Amino acid sequence: MKEVQVEFEEQIEQLKSYLIAEDINSFREKFLELHVYEQSQVYLSLSKDERLRAYNFLSPNEMADTFEILEEEEESVEKYLEEMNPQYAANMLSEMYRDNAADMLNQLEPYTIKKYLSLMPKKDADGIKKLLKYEDDTAGSIMTTEYISIFANQTIQSAMAILKKKAPEAETIYYVYVVDATRKLVGVISLRDLIVHEDDEMISDIMGDRLISVNGNDDQRDVARTMQDYDFLAIPVVDDEERLIGIITVDDIMDVISDEAASDYSGLAGVDVEERSENPFVVASKRLPWLIILLFLGIGTSTLISNYEEMISKASILAVFISLITGTAGNAGTQSLAVAVRKLADNDENKRNFKKLIISEIASGLITGVVTGATIFLAVGIWKENFVLGSVIGIAMLVAITIANLAGSFIPILMERIGFDPAVASGPFITTLTDLTSVLIYFNIAALFMEYLV
Amino acid sequence: MKEVQVEFEEQIEQLKSYLIAEDINSFREKFLELHVYEQSQVYLSLSKDERLRAYNFLSPNEMADTFEILEEEEESVEKYLEEMNPQYAANMLSEMYRDNAADMLNQLEPYTIKKYLSLMPKKDADGIKKLLKYEDDTAGSIMTTEYISIFANQTIQSAMAILKKKAPEAETIYYVYVVDATRKLVGVISLRDLIVHEDDEMISDIMGDRLISVNGNDDQRDVARTMQDYDFLAIPVVDDEERLIGIITVDDIMDVISDEAASDYSGLAGVDVEERSENPFVVASKRLPWLIILLFLGIGTSTLISNYEEMISKASILAVFISLITGTAGNAGTQSLAVAVRKLADNDENKRNFKKLIISEIASGLITGVVTGATIFLAVGIWKENFVLGSVIGIAMLVAITIANLAGSFIPILMERIGFDPAVASGPFITTLTDLTSVLIYFNIAALFMEYLV
Repeated sequence: MKEVQVEFEEQIEQLKSYLIAEDINSFREKFLELHVYEQSQVYLSLSKDERLRAYNFLSPNEMADTFEILEEEEESVEKYLEEMNPQYAANMLSEMYRDNAADMLNQLEPYTIKKYLSLMPKKDADGIKKLLKYEDDTAGSIMTTEYISIFANQTIQSAMAILKKKAPEAETIYYVYVVDATRKLVGVISLRDLIVHEDDEMISDIMGDRLISVNGNDDQRDVARTMQDYDFLAIPVVDDEERLIGIITVDDIMDVISDEAASDYSGLAGVDVEERSENPFVVASKRLPWLIILLFLGIGTSTLISNYEEMISKASILAVFISLITGTAGNAGTQSLAVAVRKLADNDENKRNFKKLIISEIASGLITGVVTGATIFLAVGIWKENFVLGSVIGIAMLVAITIANLAGSFIPILMERIGFDPAVASGPFITTLTDLTSVLIYFNIAALFMEYLV
Repeated sequence: MKEVQVEFEEQIEQLKSYLIAEDINSFREKFLELHVYEQSQVYLSLSKDERLRAYNFLSPNEMADTFEILEEEEESVEKYLEEMNPQYAANMLSEMYRDNAADMLNQLEPYTIKKYLSLMPKKDADGIKKLLKYEDDTAGSIMTTEYISIFANQTIQSAMAILKKKAPEAETIYYVYVVDATRKLVGVISLRDLIVHEDDEMISDIMGDRLISVNGNDDQRDVARTMQDYDFLAIPVVDDEERLIGIITVDDIMDVISDEAASDYSGLAGVDVEERSENPFVVASKRLPWLIILLFLGIGTSTLISNYEEMISKASILAVFISLITGTAGNAGTQSLAVAVRKLADNDENKRNFKKLIISEIASGLITGVVTGATIFLAVGIWKENFVLGSVIGIAMLVAITIANLAGSFIPILMERIGFDPAVASGPFITTLTDLTSVLIYFNIAALFMEYLV
């Protein structure tokens, strides 16, 4: 892959030189033979001046191919569209696959969306409008309306004729959907099946009628899981009346799986890991909100410890083990949280038995607590030659870990119940929270043994 | 989806009753009309006695379809194969797609693998052996050898004839690979292109010759990224001489993306989030190793604090803020770690500029440190009416956060350099480590101001 990389850098430089020299033919020849992903990489490396030239060298239709791949560079899209002639931009958007065009428009201001839609052919504008109404992260928001549908009472030959005709604009031709007169989905057939059967067979005889479809309002995460389970390349999307309204293709599902994973990972770390900026001020401004919120939660813990200051001044050894107990409980809570968040992400009802999950977490908290507590009892007892202190630390550890496991599993469940994304109940949040409970547990247990500790 | 679920439960019960009643015809009729994913779900819900009956009712070929989907239930595969007649198991494995058969065999003991391979047709055994030699997580380990290849000097018509013949056993027919006489990959063509062109056109005229391929030894994570970038449904795998040795299909790539995400998430939480057991002893035994390792790291921090016990007994107020400083630095370190791990997972060289990353992390650490430090300076100064104490906490916070950011970005980079998976430099590890550095920083700064604090 390395060699390809170097060669590609050279190609980019060459393309830029064609742009600057206004050598339209050479530019078009070399640019258009690239894969669209590579075209998009070239485009992203151009300066504004070079991009303006590129718009003159490429038709809206050609530019559309490049733009299909750009959706993830969200922040720049608005800038790119603005620098184009509005009619050129509208033409380009109307030439794109509608799901991608809708994704792109969704990043703009409402009046800008309206402007572009009004400059498009009505058919395309209407198709895109249908997709714009779906909320983020739903099946509807990632589906495309450019699929191929046929009727059951056709022969394979006539279906193949439709397929050949629609192939250039359909997003996939590998599945063909069978609908009835009311557009209700009644069957599905793969191109593989069309090819291996004889031309004069009827669609109704060979189509699959065990339909797996999703609703436009379903969560995209559930759609991704269904497609992974069934190894589909595309899945049909229906409305509440079971009418076919679109399809979702596997390339979009790969992006969903990646995005959801990044979002879970971000939640656990209390930071947006997709942050692309390297400007430290931008980076800091994105991380500070979480840090400051957690700082104030942490001040709560300090206030609590502050109540035990007299105890500490009498037995300063107690201060030595605060961070050990809060740290270990935090680690246990993070483990429990991560497992709970992943179980919640599963739409398999059997795995979503919350009562069982919480009981299992309390039980495993008790077991890990007993082992960890016994270990630290011995370690502290031997180290400080003080088994009373060892007992205090050991018991506090046992209780703190059990509570941390309970909190780690209960909080994401609670968040989901009240309608939040459980993944946002992040690692830093749970460690800061268990700091508070652990300190409370620790000093209360220490108070019981105070006469032996001083 | 709910309704389908309920209906499916009923179907499972019905199928079980056919098995018990030895009603082979009804069982076969209902079972074989299910999607293979559903077949696998039925299979997994059977008791041992029911499974033994199922083996008698279904041919090895039919059972192979069900088994294609089972790969993730790794622990049970050995048990299932053992309860089958060995010849039946070998026949079933030889009927599976070779990548799946190899995945399954890879979970068994070497002598068991040998036994099954010796019972298979030689052609299948040889094909599977080729895949078994690849290491886990490489392109070779997830590729299949069941692809369709043609020559450049064929017409579309003759290519379509090959395709129709090979369609039943090929894992995908949507891409056809063009090779020369030495099996070197020279082109690729999609079924879409084959269909829209005329029958008498030559493959050499319409094939794409900008080849994107991967090497059998490439990391599966890099393969996944390439397939996502290019929106491929399959990618060719070549050996060091550029000869075609297999293909990787998108269904396997979806699993790679999920598995890699789960593994990163697990690393950040210090727990295997794919743990399926609900037995608290099993759960605890998997979580304890990390907890105990971190516990001993934490004892290091306690030992350190222990050195400052005299300071604490003089100014017990110092103990109040230990957990605030270690907690906040831990949060900052976790943020920095998560961003670094994600950047390392990117195989785009431009994003892997480590020097720039570390400098950016130190700079953003300084900025977040200044803001957080100033906040806590004011909060503590006002709360405790003691701005000297506020200064100690504020300055310690600033330094501890900067060091935490440095450690969070440096440690995963170091781990990758020395050949470990950076994702394993987990969140709990970094928080426990920053506990240590923060305590050191805090007490050393406090020592400078000690005369004003007592």
